Amino acid sequence: MNQEYPSLLLEKAVGEFAKLPGIGPKTAMRLVLHLLRQDTAAVDAFAGSIVKLKHEVKYCKVCHNISDTDVCQICSNPSRDSSLVCVVENIRDVMAVEATRQFKGLYHVLGGIISPMDGVGPADLQIGSLVQRIAEGGIKEVILALSTTMEGDTTNFYIYRKLEKMNVKLSVIARGISVGDELQYADEVTLGRSIVNRTVFSGKI
Amino acid sequence: MNQEYPSLLLEKAVGEFAKLPGIGPKTAMRLVLHLLRQDTAAVDAFAGSIVKLKHEVKYCKVCHNISDTDVCQICSNPSRDSSLVCVVENIRDVMAVEATRQFKGLYHVLGGIISPMDGVGPADLQIGSLVQRIAEGGIKEVILALSTTMEGDTTNFYIYRKLEKMNVKLSVIARGISVGDELQYADEVTLGRSIVNRTVFSGKI
Repeated sequence: MNQEYPSLLLEKAVGEFAKLPGIGPKTAMRLVLHLLRQDTAAVDAFAGSIVKLKHEVKYCKVCHNISDTDVCQICSNPSRDSSLVCVVENIRDVMAVEATRQFKGLYHVLGGIISPMDGVGPADLQIGSLVQRIAEGGIKEVILALSTTMEGDTTNFYIYRKLEKMNVKLSVIARGISVGDELQYADEVTLGRSIVNRTVFSGKI
Repeated sequence: MNQEYPSLLLEKAVGEFAKLPGIGPKTAMRLVLHLLRQDTAAVDAFAGSIVKLKHEVKYCKVCHNISDTDVCQICSNPSRDSSLVCVVENIRDVMAVEATRQFKGLYHVLGGIISPMDGVGPADLQIGSLVQRIAEGGIKEVILALSTTMEGDTTNFYIYRKLEKMNVKLSVIARGISVGDELQYADEVTLGRSIVNRTVFSGKI
């Protein structure tokens, strides 16, 4: 439906919303008309929150996670194990690992993964600062927790080559059958990997 | 997943996006992180477009459609038939009817439909101004193009009662089988209505 907008201001706002990923022109229109029905203070608060975030956001000097302070709450928490560093792709992955409550070390946020298709090379990522962090000492193990995709594997291998000469243990998150999945629906690669990488069973998972 | 945000600014922005209809916390996070990756000018343009719309938007004095001017482009277009007024619920419905290119009259935007469940009564809608517009003369026919729901029917009936004593023809959009639909999948009410309201067939639809 090629629509003519009754107002240029409306068309501009809808156009801006439609630039967001996964938001088409119809959804953009719905969102803009929703905001237009709210009072002015609510619209200003909506717009102000994203402007304030963009202008005032900081990234932790140590792990590059988003933060309100120069060093983030995780890196500056003395009760966390600073000898253990989990390498993740982005901020959302930090939040996902944190939500498991299974990890008590620190993070290192790469800011992406190597993806030639998207024009992302190693120089675009925080790999140099990871090497430097390890060179400064105190880190015993680096856990690679990247996507289990070709891009993730490429990045894992690139980091492996950078760190193999350094005195640090390198590990990668386990790949296997998701908890709750039935074997018949698992793909062959994952099922094969889960058999090769089987763990000792002592009556308790 | 009960997530702890690494930044209060991020949490605030995600919270604002999550207030939008159909946007959950996960999508809100994705949208905010997308905007955070854009440059500052793009984020300012995004936020500015909605603030500018909210602060500077006008509604046409005649039909109440959104407009950049006091009287909208449709109402001020001399080639349109000002004796024919199509009553619609909202701005999107004006755009939907315009997109059909089948209507050359003017509009009247109610700003909603009567819906006691949502606390919307006749006084919240632009029904008084419709009556006044007709009283001023020059309008021969009013077409009711509201949703074919109970709320739409209630509003149709309310407007009928308001206009029945006035010297104006009142019509309602045809209800029937959608073009391209198979009869076996049509609901009984619609199919029944389409038989009762059959039109003369002269070899051409």
